[in-house]
Amino acid sequence: METQIPEQIRPDQENPLHSVDALLQAWPAMSAAERSLAFHGLQRSDAEDLFLAMGAADQAEVLHEISPVEKRTWIRLLAPDDAADLLQELNFEERSWMLALLDDITRREVTALMAYAEDEAGGLMNSRFVRLRPEMEVDEAITYLRQQAKTHVETIYYAYVLDSEQKLLGVASFRQIFSAPPDRRVREIMETDLKVIPDDMDQEEVSRIFSQNDLTAMPVVDAEGHMKGIVTVDDIVTVVQEEATEDFQKMGGTEALDAPYFQISFLEMIRKRAGWLTILFVGEMFTATAMGYFSKEIERAVVLALFIPLIISSGGNSGSQATTLIIRAMALGEVRIKDWWRVFMRECASGITLGAILGLIGLLRILIWPARKTLYGDHYALVAASVSASLVGVVLWGTLAGSMLPFLLRKLGFDPASASAPFVATIVDVTGLIIYFSVASLILGGTLL
Amino acid sequence: METQIPEQIRPDQENPLHSVDALLQAWPAMSAAERSLAFHGLQRSDAEDLFLAMGAADQAEVLHEISPVEKRTWIRLLAPDDAADLLQELNFEERSWMLALLDDITRREVTALMAYAEDEAGGLMNSRFVRLRPEMEVDEAITYLRQQAKTHVETIYYAYVLDSEQKLLGVASFRQIFSAPPDRRVREIMETDLKVIPDDMDQEEVSRIFSQNDLTAMPVVDAEGHMKGIVTVDDIVTVVQEEATEDFQKMGGTEALDAPYFQISFLEMIRKRAGWLTILFVGEMFTATAMGYFSKEIERAVVLALFIPLIISSGGNSGSQATTLIIRAMALGEVRIKDWWRVFMRECASGITLGAILGLIGLLRILIWPARKTLYGDHYALVAASVSASLVGVVLWGTLAGSMLPFLLRKLGFDPASASAPFVATIVDVTGLIIYFSVASLILGGTLL
Repeated sequence: METQIPEQIRPDQENPLHSVDALLQAWPAMSAAERSLAFHGLQRSDAEDLFLAMGAADQAEVLHEISPVEKRTWIRLLAPDDAADLLQELNFEERSWMLALLDDITRREVTALMAYAEDEAGGLMNSRFVRLRPEMEVDEAITYLRQQAKTHVETIYYAYVLDSEQKLLGVASFRQIFSAPPDRRVREIMETDLKVIPDDMDQEEVSRIFSQNDLTAMPVVDAEGHMKGIVTVDDIVTVVQEEATEDFQKMGGTEALDAPYFQISFLEMIRKRAGWLTILFVGEMFTATAMGYFSKEIERAVVLALFIPLIISSGGNSGSQATTLIIRAMALGEVRIKDWWRVFMRECASGITLGAILGLIGLLRILIWPARKTLYGDHYALVAASVSASLVGVVLWGTLAGSMLPFLLRKLGFDPASASAPFVATIVDVTGLIIYFSVASLILGGTLL
Repeated sequence: METQIPEQIRPDQENPLHSVDALLQAWPAMSAAERSLAFHGLQRSDAEDLFLAMGAADQAEVLHEISPVEKRTWIRLLAPDDAADLLQELNFEERSWMLALLDDITRREVTALMAYAEDEAGGLMNSRFVRLRPEMEVDEAITYLRQQAKTHVETIYYAYVLDSEQKLLGVASFRQIFSAPPDRRVREIMETDLKVIPDDMDQEEVSRIFSQNDLTAMPVVDAEGHMKGIVTVDDIVTVVQEEATEDFQKMGGTEALDAPYFQISFLEMIRKRAGWLTILFVGEMFTATAMGYFSKEIERAVVLALFIPLIISSGGNSGSQATTLIIRAMALGEVRIKDWWRVFMRECASGITLGAILGLIGLLRILIWPARKTLYGDHYALVAASVSASLVGVVLWGTLAGSMLPFLLRKLGFDPASASAPFVATIVDVTGLIIYFSVASLILGGTLL
């Protein structure tokens, strides 16, 4: 098979970015054959840049293709936290094989990092940071930092001051040390008003703290206050993207894919989609049951059936709006569990207003439709009133169900993002039918029904 | 009115974070009165920390409450890029008033920054960065950086080497300068293999480059290659959150709110929600029209009406899944326009598989239902076959429509995220009805119909 490198990845004079970047961008959309060809076509230094910039899953794929002898030099390029992420992508056998390729110190660090879950602070952090002693003088500290600058520490821009038991006493930014008089002690210039992250904090929480504080790096400590590593803001960008993707996919009514669209296997994708789709389908079967109760009404007034899709979809759409707004507001910390009553009151008002708008449009649609008599019969005005009144009820109900469900789920310990648009629509469909036929019986009783 | 400070913001011993952070977290959920009380209850230094950590909209609100005499000291705390963001939150009159409070140099910088749209690279960048000349020696450069470390530059960790016309020649990280021999020239140690961002690049694109390259800062240049400022990764975290929120809200079938849930006015929120809801409603009216064509079939076989909600919602749900996956994959750059055919083929297979799963469940549901004869009549097996075959068709159609719509929208120059779950459901509802009744006519022709 002849494989062509896609157009985007050819060096492009208009593009101010380097071709390694172009490759990086095209990577997720490339086939395995294209990737292999492109990677091996690069100069060593470019290939290294590309490798270091990739995500762990892509790195694992690239390493797979590399001969056993060369693997060592590639895996040793990685910082301990990145190496740990990469190893977590491998099966047990490959993992121990790769661990054996690391030097002793790194192996110990990587093993310690792998004990943390991927989505907690400990799984994000880098264990190589600059340590200072409180009694060091500033010029000693600068000399020390100068040596460290040549090694593999993640950043020299923050130096952490630890006591003899590795407990964190303070932090000094490089800038502070650098602009201080040379004979001051580190103890005198360090910040002690510290923001620290517990090593078991969820990564979503960590990213919230970063984005609220505009920090570049934060120290991670264990329950006893021992400093374990640092998390840097560039890792946080990835976390924020991942978390948004997860919520996004849940919102659309699938399980989170946890892999790029073209990289997940077909069967795995079907499994993740079929699960929710089946649950929703089984839930939606209750509509058939509910409709069964009203089949006599439909028989007597077929005209009622005509508006069923319109009414239930309006409930679903308004519910979908409400649930999306609330889930996102919760994820951003704008709305908390204790706000449920304020949200309830606000959504009551929204639901009535939105329902009234749609109800009015629906009313006019039937009343002024040219063929209204032939299509909807002599009682078309009463039909219009039934549809219109039902719309107000269904939209109000959809809005309330959609906005309260995320609170209920969070209260019960589930992820509020599971209150997806399709989930809410399903709940609202069954009840929407009941509202519609009840209102219709009330208004059309004695005439059509 | 007695105002109580909410519980979360009391200093909490279990929480390792400082109380300013707790306040920051609670801020979006607090009322105006609570905020004012909390802000003025802080010590000056804490209040400053809080102020600096807030978003521009919150800063504008706080400044509003501060006496005119004090305003000057507060606005002067801000870096030019943050000041520009803040001013963009104000109306014209307040804006010129605030500009007058700045010193001359900052005012010029802020005015230049405000010329950029908020969502392009120029609107994100900070214009205070460290400039070096190529012919400087390393120890000169270090001395110069040492002075700069005391001023208000955004970061001293990257120094940009400019020629006499302010064109960017290279970059030297502080770490490189610091670990180089003192008599080398900046020219000899700088990186010239530069990644730069054009000043009019969209912020979504900028954030993609950052997250792919794991960088801390990047230079922004204009069309002539003059360096205008730097974008730092901490600003990118905010951008990524904002962009995800916007896509999220569009996905749920509202316009992007552009403000926290409790801060947007009721009328503004209704306006943003009613627009799409009305469009969807009008689209959904075609279901009533479509149903009109089939009213004779419904009259003859009311049993067909019972399954209408089940069938159209299955189409909507599968469409919602597909569109969500594709929109997110596009936003992350995993799927590009040119991939539409690969996606089409993959979603064909997905749609058929998912449709077959639901069709089978639907078939069994009717065939083994105890009251099948009374509810669905003598021809229940044929009804089951109609429902089941329609499900395969509707789910396949929903999946294809949902996955192709984002491509179509992008091709036409719209935001693919507008292909929201409700939008796709609306399109699929009308066509789903046509599929259902056509299949039913085919299978039930001669018996029920």
